[in-house]
Amino acid sequence: MEQNLWNNFQKVRAKSPLVHNITNYVVMNSTANALLAIGASPVMAHSAEEVEDMEKIANALVINIGTLSPAWIAAMKLAVKKANALNKPIVLDPVGAGATAFRNKTITELLEAGKFSVIRANASEIMSMVSAENRTKGVDSTNTMEQAYDSAEYLCGKYNNVVCISGKTDIVMSGKLKMKIHNGHEMMSRVTGLGCTATAIIGAFIGTIEDAFTATVSAMAVIGVAGELAAKISAGPGSLQMNILDKLYNMSEQEFLQNVKIES
Amino acid sequence: MEQNLWNNFQKVRAKSPLVHNITNYVVMNSTANALLAIGASPVMAHSAEEVEDMEKIANALVINIGTLSPAWIAAMKLAVKKANALNKPIVLDPVGAGATAFRNKTITELLEAGKFSVIRANASEIMSMVSAENRTKGVDSTNTMEQAYDSAEYLCGKYNNVVCISGKTDIVMSGKLKMKIHNGHEMMSRVTGLGCTATAIIGAFIGTIEDAFTATVSAMAVIGVAGELAAKISAGPGSLQMNILDKLYNMSEQEFLQNVKIES
Amino acid sequence: MEQNLWNNFQKVRAKSPLVHNITNYVVMNSTANALLAIGASPVMAHSAEEVEDMEKIANALVINIGTLSPAWIAAMKLAVKKANALNKPIVLDPVGAGATAFRNKTITELLEAGKFSVIRANASEIMSMVSAENRTKGVDSTNTMEQAYDSAEYLCGKYNNVVCISGKTDIVMSGKLKMKIHNGHEMMSRVTGLGCTATAIIGAFIGTIEDAFTATVSAMAVIGVAGELAAKISAGPGSLQMNILDKLYNMSEQEFLQNVKIES
Repeated sequence: MEQNLWNNFQKVRAKSPLVHNITNYVVMNSTANALLAIGASPVMAHSAEEVEDMEKIANALVINIGTLSPAWIAAMKLAVKKANALNKPIVLDPVGAGATAFRNKTITELLEAGKFSVIRANASEIMSMVSAENRTKGVDSTNTMEQAYDSAEYLCGKYNNVVCISGKTDIVMSGKLKMKIHNGHEMMSRVTGLGCTATAIIGAFIGTIEDAFTATVSAMAVIGVAGELAAKISAGPGSLQMNILDKLYNMSEQEFLQNVKIES
Repeated sequence: MEQNLWNNFQKVRAKSPLVHNITNYVVMNSTANALLAIGASPVMAHSAEEVEDMEKIANALVINIGTLSPAWIAAMKLAVKKANALNKPIVLDPVGAGATAFRNKTITELLEAGKFSVIRANASEIMSMVSAENRTKGVDSTNTMEQAYDSAEYLCGKYNNVVCISGKTDIVMSGKLKMKIHNGHEMMSRVTGLGCTATAIIGAFIGTIEDAFTATVSAMAVIGVAGELAAKISAGPGSLQMNILDKLYNMSEQEFLQNVKIES
Repeated sequence: MEQNLWNNFQKVRAKSPLVHNITNYVVMNSTANALLAIGASPVMAHSAEEVEDMEKIANALVINIGTLSPAWIAAMKLAVKKANALNKPIVLDPVGAGATAFRNKTITELLEAGKFSVIRANASEIMSMVSAENRTKGVDSTNTMEQAYDSAEYLCGKYNNVVCISGKTDIVMSGKLKMKIHNGHEMMSRVTGLGCTATAIIGAFIGTIEDAFTATVSAMAVIGVAGELAAKISAGPGSLQMNILDKLYNMSEQEFLQNVKIES
């Protein structure tokens, strides 16, 4: 399996998929750089006048709601519908789900607008997505990860897609398939947008690898190992951000295979 | 006093205040990273549909007018009013005050919309804010810092808040209280948005420390010392930007206390 | 000639021209930092309410269409007209020309709105600009660089300006004048927005040096040599981005003259 994940990374490098990002202002530069570092081709475009044309040439679409406004939401919906029509895979990053009614409403509208191959978020956002939909659903567990896990299973079942909960351990699930990735480093939470970066990298992998579950596991393993290796040579979050980009670019097969820690 | 400033920094790290930023596109990434590096939690959101909800969960609001447009100004006013209603402190960064009539008008409107706990700007912007209000006011001094100082005193008096002039020496004033911080490094002016970063860090401190004057002095001392220490190991502004983030994260009490230079 | 290019760089550092950028979200931070590193003063402003006022104080205008929307296009046209009226030089970066009908249309409208001193783009974008204008024009060559060269000559002739094709070799042309710059490094294509950075730096040079051809050659030589020197000490695109900023700031005359490779 580990070798398979590495091989998928090489397929991304070989294909250099064009990843269309409608994403937030904070991470546009850093996610474009991460996509370039892994060998993909990023394009950022958000205008209703051109997002459908972008889907024609893109291999995958990334929707990230970090810095929303009504015009962007309208364009996101157009892009989602066009990507679905053209059979281009989409990954959703519901940044800040639960923080405001506007975000919750937007997530609901996006999920109604079309089919997303993958949803990637942290535990709190995943739980908010479910409670926003179904506030009467009793959640008995007092354990956050267990609640997030239940919520992810619910989303998977409802939307028939892949859900990735990222955190200290990343969990990827799709129907009965489940995989945990025990990579990364706690300092990564002190660099803005590394979750968004993971989402963008998933975009590159689903734009290359047919199976969205395997693609997502591969993507999370690559960013997790890169972050872990980078943290070893970083004095703080500034150098960590730089070193992650370097590692995404120069990581060797041996480095990856010796460090990746997955569990089914 | 120096020990008190360090203790305030530790309070920020312990509380991890949520800082809502309505800021400019140029610095969104770098200020989010600076806030994370000091242990705060940034959120960037600018849509009229959600800024008021953000104030409910935020500990402080940062308003930065660097890349203005009418929709953003409207949202800024809503956020300011809501933050005032909820007693959440606000810091204003009047980027480019004096450069265009549009900026001057916006600053006036924002100051009319509500009460700001702190205004932080460079000498030229502080002077422009006063001359924009009061073009008939004679300014006799031919010394720029002296003029800026007078202007800051005028603003303090009129708005009953804290004003911080940042530059080679940072000056923080509030009514009769005055403090100078002699830290920083001239290469910092070659990194975009370090003034905006100081403003964002003030946001974290006023979201943690009740007294806005002490909070502002603490924040300016932390960014000043971090910049000064970072400059010693930086070959140019690229590495300086990275090293400042690292220092904001890993600065020790000893490093801070041995380098901070304040004067009342 | 090489010495002349270096002298032009020193003129930029001495003048510190104010460069008004209406540019894309992805590169706002990185191009502002590059402008600061070479000693210029960047301002980013995009609102129709203030772009004309910015032209009054700016020494040059940079128009970059990377992340377009209708409101921005309207402001770009206002800025272009005002800059022309005030005789301030403009450089155009037609990012993604050919990718969507919206971009092609926008480029046409911008070129109709006013006169650009310089157009800088990669080969594919330059060719798209010509084919978008003149789809019936037969292009016989099967060699991409040759086609791009022909397209650049066509644009030069039509708009009577300087055209720069950037790539492995950068080509700058203006009427009968032609110059090639053989600097840079292939890893630069793995850092987002270095093309946009080149455009912004051209902005600083045309805001300082009267002759747009010489200004553009100088700018491309400076970024090319900085990139080449930075690549030698970079483990990947993360450190490359940082080291380029450092080199733009600390490059010595000797480093520049020993490494610059131009050919007429």
